[in-house]
Amino acid sequence: MTVITLMTDFGIKDGNVGVMKGVIWEICPTAQISDLSHMIQAQNIREAGYILGRSAPYFPKGSIHAVVVDPGVGTERRPMAARIGDWYYVGPDNGTITVWLERANQEGWRMEFVELNRPQYWLQNISHVFHGRDIFSPVAAHLANGTSLSELGSAFNDPIRLELPKPEKTSNGWRGEVIHIDHFGNVSTNVRIENLGEALNAKENITVRLNGVEIKGMVDTFGERPVGELVALIGSTGNLGIAVVNGSAQQKLGSKVGDGVDVIDK
Amino acid sequence: MTVITLMTDFGIKDGNVGVMKGVIWEICPTAQISDLSHMIQAQNIREAGYILGRSAPYFPKGSIHAVVVDPGVGTERRPMAARIGDWYYVGPDNGTITVWLERANQEGWRMEFVELNRPQYWLQNISHVFHGRDIFSPVAAHLANGTSLSELGSAFNDPIRLELPKPEKTSNGWRGEVIHIDHFGNVSTNVRIENLGEALNAKENITVRLNGVEIKGMVDTFGERPVGELVALIGSTGNLGIAVVNGSAQQKLGSKVGDGVDVIDK
Amino acid sequence: MTVITLMTDFGIKDGNVGVMKGVIWEICPTAQISDLSHMIQAQNIREAGYILGRSAPYFPKGSIHAVVVDPGVGTERRPMAARIGDWYYVGPDNGTITVWLERANQEGWRMEFVELNRPQYWLQNISHVFHGRDIFSPVAAHLANGTSLSELGSAFNDPIRLELPKPEKTSNGWRGEVIHIDHFGNVSTNVRIENLGEALNAKENITVRLNGVEIKGMVDTFGERPVGELVALIGSTGNLGIAVVNGSAQQKLGSKVGDGVDVIDK
Repeated sequence: MTVITLMTDFGIKDGNVGVMKGVIWEICPTAQISDLSHMIQAQNIREAGYILGRSAPYFPKGSIHAVVVDPGVGTERRPMAARIGDWYYVGPDNGTITVWLERANQEGWRMEFVELNRPQYWLQNISHVFHGRDIFSPVAAHLANGTSLSELGSAFNDPIRLELPKPEKTSNGWRGEVIHIDHFGNVSTNVRIENLGEALNAKENITVRLNGVEIKGMVDTFGERPVGELVALIGSTGNLGIAVVNGSAQQKLGSKVGDGVDVIDK
Repeated sequence: MTVITLMTDFGIKDGNVGVMKGVIWEICPTAQISDLSHMIQAQNIREAGYILGRSAPYFPKGSIHAVVVDPGVGTERRPMAARIGDWYYVGPDNGTITVWLERANQEGWRMEFVELNRPQYWLQNISHVFHGRDIFSPVAAHLANGTSLSELGSAFNDPIRLELPKPEKTSNGWRGEVIHIDHFGNVSTNVRIENLGEALNAKENITVRLNGVEIKGMVDTFGERPVGELVALIGSTGNLGIAVVNGSAQQKLGSKVGDGVDVIDK
Repeated sequence: MTVITLMTDFGIKDGNVGVMKGVIWEICPTAQISDLSHMIQAQNIREAGYILGRSAPYFPKGSIHAVVVDPGVGTERRPMAARIGDWYYVGPDNGTITVWLERANQEGWRMEFVELNRPQYWLQNISHVFHGRDIFSPVAAHLANGTSLSELGSAFNDPIRLELPKPEKTSNGWRGEVIHIDHFGNVSTNVRIENLGEALNAKENITVRLNGVEIKGMVDTFGERPVGELVALIGSTGNLGIAVVNGSAQQKLGSKVGDGVDVIDK
């Protein structure tokens, strides 16, 4: 009953995600398949990687995360599979796993990478444009059946990593940037709970600035402030977030990924 | 093979629904998980409750409906689980179950409510902002594993109920209001098949008025009238609905939830 | 562990697809259910049929494809089930299976059609407007349980077929039309790899014209050309497609289904 998750930029209207599930169940009929997201912005590897990194560890050990945000499909980019901690990745070698690898480095998790080069584990006919169906789904299914990484391909140790913006220490706090905006319009930044550290013991003394506004004091949760008010808080995966109570910070502030954020902790 | 359904206002792009499934399968690997909807309008408890009430009984006995439309997350609102009829609810105590409870009262179904206050059935770390992942998913999974309600929390008997608008008898029929508009633009009202009763034996004599238009006669189904025409009919869950054949009543009429509707049955 | 797929024009916000899954699991608790698409344009049987035809064969033998794009619900249109090749169809007899039947004819696949007229295999109460829940889901579940087609209804042999546009041979190539536009804005046409045949051995000599532009030469995959450039290529199911590298051909060209396309192969 191994879990396989699927994340793509395919959207949900064309049936392609369903086809991937069909291919998986043909090979591994007992796989538990969960969508993670199919609404990744087209070709946005960084967005996929951010969601993957924070989500992967919530799945049972042995779960397989197949991610297909693959602008290089059909070119020389490597198809790959990996073990990272207690979970597996299947997808293109294009940086999708960057955030997850950072976490693995911090935690000292085991890592193993193979280039997928054994067509006997793929569909018989390989298109130039849909490796999610032809290569990555079958490989994920074989992994779920117990095939080892070393049978699926040749080991390598230099997976592509994206250069991700890091928050910088300033004289009175941290300077970071917006890395994700969710369905509610909540803004998430790359400033982490670990960065703020003891400053969080006096949340009322912290000031957050972005998009020309200033939020004085942080809260634990939305309901501490009136509806419509801007709040700054630690989100569910440890990142500093900015939200509007029962509203959209994105809409109120015009925030977009890459916008700067300043945290003043004294 | 217990069924767990998930309904939220999380949308489908950020991976959070997938994470809930991962948490569930970690605890109960055989759970059959179905999405019910993740496109509930943000914080719209009433909309979630309307869909839950009409959908819950179509699932196998013992199914668990986890619903997380939770503007009060992290505040003092009670997390709860319930047995209502032959099914279970897990989610915040904020009125989400109101319509379902009305049905339970009518049918004489068994009801049992507990406040979730036994952290041993939750994830180890509880965020302030994502109890869907940290509390409700694990509790749903433990229920699916056979843990009893009384082990999960302390009994109570006053779940929050929303005040929902009821249709009123008028001198020549009923006055109700729009309670839901679906993906097609079909308009659903709170006037029920039971309200109209014997008047439905002479559908041709019924007139429906809303948004300044008048529909003379009711039909059984869309195909009885030409494409583009407004029709009034009993929807699939017994509510009076207004539709445009192969079109959108919402678009044609400008209807919105809360708009008044008059039914004249003589 | 039979697979049942669901395709509808119901959208994803109203809970109706979830209800279909509940009905299925009540009858066949072990069914593996996959969404194929619920974002079919309202009442667009042709779009559903196109996606169904190209997707159905990627599922395990014995899989059941329930498709409910059903403007005639509640009227005299026949509810049906079919075996087509190694897979099953359940849904209205309205042409949804046309593309799949064309494929079956080409491949010499076995075909068998029954009109669903045995209410003992349906829900007890049949609405006039939601046969997806009341008839097609229960029938799909009974098929998954091993009930034979002949038990579910009476055989017939004249399923409705849509008249689909075919590409025409011209003096210097083919004249076809746009049949689908996907989530990325990639344009798919009815000109098939079989039509182009040996011309594909000299892709650089092929010219494609649509919406007033001319694309000289075909490629194998997106990454062969610079970002933003128009390319013509064979898509993942063998249809001639037009795309913009990391962009949207639909947006660049203003293409819509039905637009003409010319392929000049010499």
